[in-house]
Amino acid sequence: MTRPVASRVRDLDTPALLIDLDRMERNLAKVASYGSEHHLRVRPHTKTHKIPALARRQLELGSVGLTVAKVGEAEVMLDARPPELLVAFPVIGRSKLDRLMHVARETAVTVSLDSLFAAEQLSAAAGDHQVEVGVLAEVDVGLGRVGVAPGPALLQLAEAIHRLPHLRWDGVAFYPGQIKSLDDEGQRQIARLAELIGEMLADLRRAGFEPRIVSGGSTPTLFESHRLPGVNEIRPGTYIFNDRNTVLSGACNWHECAASILVTVVSTAKPGQIIVDGGSKTFSSDRPVTGSEVSFGRVVEAENAVFGKMNEEHGFVDVGTVNHDFGVGDRVRIIPNHVCVAVNLHECVYGIRGDDVVEVWPVAARGKLQ
Amino acid sequence: MTRPVASRVRDLDTPALLIDLDRMERNLAKVASYGSEHHLRVRPHTKTHKIPALARRQLELGSVGLTVAKVGEAEVMLDARPPELLVAFPVIGRSKLDRLMHVARETAVTVSLDSLFAAEQLSAAAGDHQVEVGVLAEVDVGLGRVGVAPGPALLQLAEAIHRLPHLRWDGVAFYPGQIKSLDDEGQRQIARLAELIGEMLADLRRAGFEPRIVSGGSTPTLFESHRLPGVNEIRPGTYIFNDRNTVLSGACNWHECAASILVTVVSTAKPGQIIVDGGSKTFSSDRPVTGSEVSFGRVVEAENAVFGKMNEEHGFVDVGTVNHDFGVGDRVRIIPNHVCVAVNLHECVYGIRGDDVVEVWPVAARGKLQ
Repeated sequence: MTRPVASRVRDLDTPALLIDLDRMERNLAKVASYGSEHHLRVRPHTKTHKIPALARRQLELGSVGLTVAKVGEAEVMLDARPPELLVAFPVIGRSKLDRLMHVARETAVTVSLDSLFAAEQLSAAAGDHQVEVGVLAEVDVGLGRVGVAPGPALLQLAEAIHRLPHLRWDGVAFYPGQIKSLDDEGQRQIARLAELIGEMLADLRRAGFEPRIVSGGSTPTLFESHRLPGVNEIRPGTYIFNDRNTVLSGACNWHECAASILVTVVSTAKPGQIIVDGGSKTFSSDRPVTGSEVSFGRVVEAENAVFGKMNEEHGFVDVGTVNHDFGVGDRVRIIPNHVCVAVNLHECVYGIRGDDVVEVWPVAARGKLQ
Repeated sequence: MTRPVASRVRDLDTPALLIDLDRMERNLAKVASYGSEHHLRVRPHTKTHKIPALARRQLELGSVGLTVAKVGEAEVMLDARPPELLVAFPVIGRSKLDRLMHVARETAVTVSLDSLFAAEQLSAAAGDHQVEVGVLAEVDVGLGRVGVAPGPALLQLAEAIHRLPHLRWDGVAFYPGQIKSLDDEGQRQIARLAELIGEMLADLRRAGFEPRIVSGGSTPTLFESHRLPGVNEIRPGTYIFNDRNTVLSGACNWHECAASILVTVVSTAKPGQIIVDGGSKTFSSDRPVTGSEVSFGRVVEAENAVFGKMNEEHGFVDVGTVNHDFGVGDRVRIIPNHVCVAVNLHECVYGIRGDDVVEVWPVAARGKLQ
């Protein structure tokens, strides 16, 4: 999937999504050693990079398997030869399930789901294809997205999974996406989450369900996962690159941001403003997750610049308070708010060391929506 | 680029971007006849569909050429055999210019630009490749994006384009993107714009510059273009499909929305809410252009449903006030806020008539960022 190119960053055309490989490798190593230190299975979510070669690196660093959101991503990620694949999304509909069962013939597949409907469909498909599929019962721990409530609803779901043929009940999964940062409020939320998980596991055990896997966490809470009692698996995604949201949440610093988008100044017609050749089709229109500020990235070369507006192909950057004269043709790097959606807009990403472009990776699972 | 499929909408997997072909054809015909009635050249912006087969249809309906934002889009759109191509974006950097000159050997190329820097680079590249390139001087009429101010700056740019070898000064281009709707304020803005354009053209003529092309307009103002004196070209993009923003602006009605995204309900775990299998990687996170409301589309089957939140692959739809019970596995169609960025997220779109899928078009210019 990779081809080395003899090229310099200065020769790349723009917009181009750059990955600082030294930073990426430090990010990968940091989570590998965190997982190992705290006896946490690491099952990285590949939605962030969508690149089998990078998934392979995660596996080589000790990840037990991979996580994906879509069956189409699972199909692509077989190229990374994962020992197991978790689809962290309810797989609904016969056509998707048939495709997933083909994946299940290549590697061990687990699905997290939250309804009897999804469990029954999965069981039927697994039976038809003569495979066994692992299942995690998805629990809602406060985000209000997918997941049954802890308590009777969870016990009912666990029983159904247990009872249905061709399914193997592996445990529970959760995503505390309501925790947006590590500030005081975030710390209180983590403490409450720890209590809730403790009670949930006690409930399950009282009912005779011993979960082999308790899988959960989020980007802001990644390095707090060991504080959650009973949790033995994390599914981090963003950590490989990090982004502006991760910094704003308090979970990493700017020097841990491995991804930036190289853009060119194409107009300086309006004083105090530069227009760059990337907008919502290059960065996505995701706003910062925390706060009410409307801005779309951090300009590495001018930290006070405000990337406050975008159209599809135009980025509006206010440089009124910046001590630097930008001219048409100048190039700047911008760290996106949300790297997962940004990567998904690019045909390929460039792995760099200093000014050298040493890797070009096609974003193989880009747009695999189904 | 197209292959007929023997399939029904009910058999399509989700998420899937559907194009109602009857509506699309009415939209195409409406603009063709508007252009013809008012003697306006129609040079459709292909950024909306990014599909050469649809560009070809636009040409067959009388469009004089095509518009693109990126050189990569121009390369793809050669497949539509356009008699002329406008790159409505300053092309900066030698590598892009070299690629554009290759395009210029296949068809007549025009670029809109706003700086001496861009004009000089373009002139040099055209000379090296022995081609002539048309140029439109981009004027800022109030958006504050690209474009020189009308008055001395415009005259200076027109003179430079006139003077530089291998460039042919064709006229002026503008984009009144500050006009967001056709309400009273929008009507006042259109009246002011008409005045401004009249003065700008008088200035140019006094200085001896007779523009052959005066190219401008926007989605909300599309059918008001004939009110702008001297304007003889429009570059409409969104009109082929329309979207929720277009309806909210007052420029079309719901029955003119040809594009919708078919999604499946994957969770109903939280009462009063459904989770569908599409989020920001399926719809984009573009909010409505007008108003402060945060919502991401209109649910065709339940107009009161509020698509108020999304993650990458999850759409949160509040159905608390909807008189309909949704179950896991149900499918709904959602009209996106902004169809141009939504199409760019899909590998293909499905052309439908009723329940029949009659076309599958790959989005060939998807992700052509450079």
